[in-house]
Amino acid sequence: MHLDRATAEALDDADELAGFRERFVGTDDDRLIYLDGNSLGRLPRETPAAVARVVEQQWGEGLVGSWSTWIGDATRVGDQLAAGVLGAGPGEVLVGDSTTVNLYKLLVAGAKARPGRDVLVCTADDFPTDRYVVSGVAADRGMTVREIGADIDAGLDPAVLAGALDDRVAVVVLSLVAYRSGALADLAAITRLVHDAGALVLWDLSHAVGAVPIQLSAAGADLAVGCTYKYLNGGPGAPAFLFVRRDLQEQLRSPIQGWFGQRDQFAMGPVYEPADGIERFGVGTPNVLGTAAVEVGARLVAEAGVDRLAAKGRAMTDLIVGFGDAWLAPHGAVLASPRQAAARGSHVTFAHPQAWQLTQALIERGVVPDFRTPDRVRLGPAPLYTRFVEVWDAMDRFRGLLEEGQLERYSAERSRVT
Amino acid sequence: MHLDRATAEALDDADELAGFRERFVGTDDDRLIYLDGNSLGRLPRETPAAVARVVEQQWGEGLVGSWSTWIGDATRVGDQLAAGVLGAGPGEVLVGDSTTVNLYKLLVAGAKARPGRDVLVCTADDFPTDRYVVSGVAADRGMTVREIGADIDAGLDPAVLAGALDDRVAVVVLSLVAYRSGALADLAAITRLVHDAGALVLWDLSHAVGAVPIQLSAAGADLAVGCTYKYLNGGPGAPAFLFVRRDLQEQLRSPIQGWFGQRDQFAMGPVYEPADGIERFGVGTPNVLGTAAVEVGARLVAEAGVDRLAAKGRAMTDLIVGFGDAWLAPHGAVLASPRQAAARGSHVTFAHPQAWQLTQALIERGVVPDFRTPDRVRLGPAPLYTRFVEVWDAMDRFRGLLEEGQLERYSAERSRVT
Repeated sequence: MHLDRATAEALDDADELAGFRERFVGTDDDRLIYLDGNSLGRLPRETPAAVARVVEQQWGEGLVGSWSTWIGDATRVGDQLAAGVLGAGPGEVLVGDSTTVNLYKLLVAGAKARPGRDVLVCTADDFPTDRYVVSGVAADRGMTVREIGADIDAGLDPAVLAGALDDRVAVVVLSLVAYRSGALADLAAITRLVHDAGALVLWDLSHAVGAVPIQLSAAGADLAVGCTYKYLNGGPGAPAFLFVRRDLQEQLRSPIQGWFGQRDQFAMGPVYEPADGIERFGVGTPNVLGTAAVEVGARLVAEAGVDRLAAKGRAMTDLIVGFGDAWLAPHGAVLASPRQAAARGSHVTFAHPQAWQLTQALIERGVVPDFRTPDRVRLGPAPLYTRFVEVWDAMDRFRGLLEEGQLERYSAERSRVT
Repeated sequence: MHLDRATAEALDDADELAGFRERFVGTDDDRLIYLDGNSLGRLPRETPAAVARVVEQQWGEGLVGSWSTWIGDATRVGDQLAAGVLGAGPGEVLVGDSTTVNLYKLLVAGAKARPGRDVLVCTADDFPTDRYVVSGVAADRGMTVREIGADIDAGLDPAVLAGALDDRVAVVVLSLVAYRSGALADLAAITRLVHDAGALVLWDLSHAVGAVPIQLSAAGADLAVGCTYKYLNGGPGAPAFLFVRRDLQEQLRSPIQGWFGQRDQFAMGPVYEPADGIERFGVGTPNVLGTAAVEVGARLVAEAGVDRLAAKGRAMTDLIVGFGDAWLAPHGAVLASPRQAAARGSHVTFAHPQAWQLTQALIERGVVPDFRTPDRVRLGPAPLYTRFVEVWDAMDRFRGLLEEGQLERYSAERSRVT
């Protein structure tokens, strides 16, 4: 690939999403190339005021009376996510808790909705918390985990999954976009495959939401969870979301019977009766400040449009793959993501024996990637605010580092937080 | 009781905590008498800046690199709570999740640490989410709930609890301060009673923390959870906390195996191994914005000192009880809380057949109480910012309403949120 910097600039000039960049804090500082928006998305400019409004006006002045507003946040913002980014219907998405807690709730609920089946399926390369939740639930309930092999670069092979499905399988837990490679699974096809085996599929959408088009309803998806602090730009530790297909809701019960899942919550009755709809998957008092930030982020993504974001993401990651072949591969940094854009989310990963040192060196040169075990450098351009020229510059600096080959001056000792 | 308004003013003049009032937003508006700080505490003046610092500097500018700070928040603020308000040691308290999720985690973990025991004990008048979690865990695990009767005004009779304890009991769930009556249980004595039966006790400290002295270590308490948005003034839906006595930590495992409970989290290893200490009870990515607000609130309470706060709380609730006898009881509003200050937290409740209408009428007159089922008006002065003269005025307006007796002009129809 021979694409010069001026061409990257021309791509920015032609980018119809370019105007969104200035709606994020810090994007006027050209020195920092932030390619980790798939770990923690940037701060939308509207968010500080939205959070301050909740803190200073609703809490500070409205006090407990503001609960008449806040009480509806979990479903209201859930509906926004459903319509704007998840391809789901109203009353199918709830915002709250962490992705992990939501995963746990839906996994247990799903497993109990398939009595007589004692196997949970997940992939060996899934994000740690997904695997840990699956193994914990299985151990706790006398179930067996069938951990299927997945190429950590190419992603899940549906044929391998098909081979793991039988009438013992209750729930399959899968990530739509793999956290390391960015490999994108086929939501509809895999859902059908799992349904054919009589099982439920629980999708982790954390690395997919806001990055690729998701049509949960059209795919007939059963259950999903996801985080809001990556491409949705909801902020550190922002409340996560969960999706339960409407016709499944009545069959499922959360294992954590909290008062925010109770039918007539403020009657405070003696017996737990789950609420009729998606609210039955609520638990405790929801995180109000965090939800306000999620709402801003979700609206921005919906306004830009997931299809346009995904198209720009494919164009950017195509550039990264192309530059990788041309500039990095000769120096031993090998593509560790699907080569075809249609098979990827919005991030691309390279394998290199000194990936940890490369990560530090890139940060020193103003490029923020993410290190992933065991030897991966992950680059996550965020179509809402990353420019093509930033991708060009980042790859150019990456090439420069490899050419210099002075990586031994960076510590091989990994810090606690990566 | 004959105490005139000037005497209440004199009590304020002599109040050594009076200076804390101006450190809360809205306290310069004398028109509003806020007696619902035990539902949602007021906004500390420092909090908006603390939250804005996290949002604008740490998130907006520091981006993902700020995780090197945030990663320690759950234990750092937990240690502050432990030392400042809970009488616990370092490494025994973790901030995160909701009270309900924490209750669930510790209840399941505790029950599994008492194999062969199949009974969970709770009280019939406990806060709904506590009872719902207990019944859900019991149903899910083939356990039995022994729900013991508790006088909803006088609180738990230890003799009744003693009668419910035997070698089938795994865990007893109790609130230290009852959410309706404010009845205060004897932490140390009940803990001993439960230990004598070989069971664990899981305390819900939600209505106690910041209101009464709590000495978890001295009492030999096993497990506790609590919320931070009442007397700790952490804000709506702020992250809750959990306590596990240090020598119990290694015996307990969270049923929700999340990556924030993993020993070497960022190694992202194949197998879940719980972290060594209190961090093993972490789950998903913690709520960073909320934790910043909790820290401000916890520091204010620690600075004021729980003993002083509790003393002022007793003085205020003594006034309320006294005025209640003199001014309200003749009109049918009957004390529904323990009469002795030492047997109460920092709120007092009255029973009246038209409690819901009274609540609306009080709010219309600038006094914010809380309605509690079935027929209770709950008054929660918060010693950090409530003045004695506000208590006087509130009780005077309460008396006025009862004397007028025009309550039928308020709707008997309860709104969804109370």
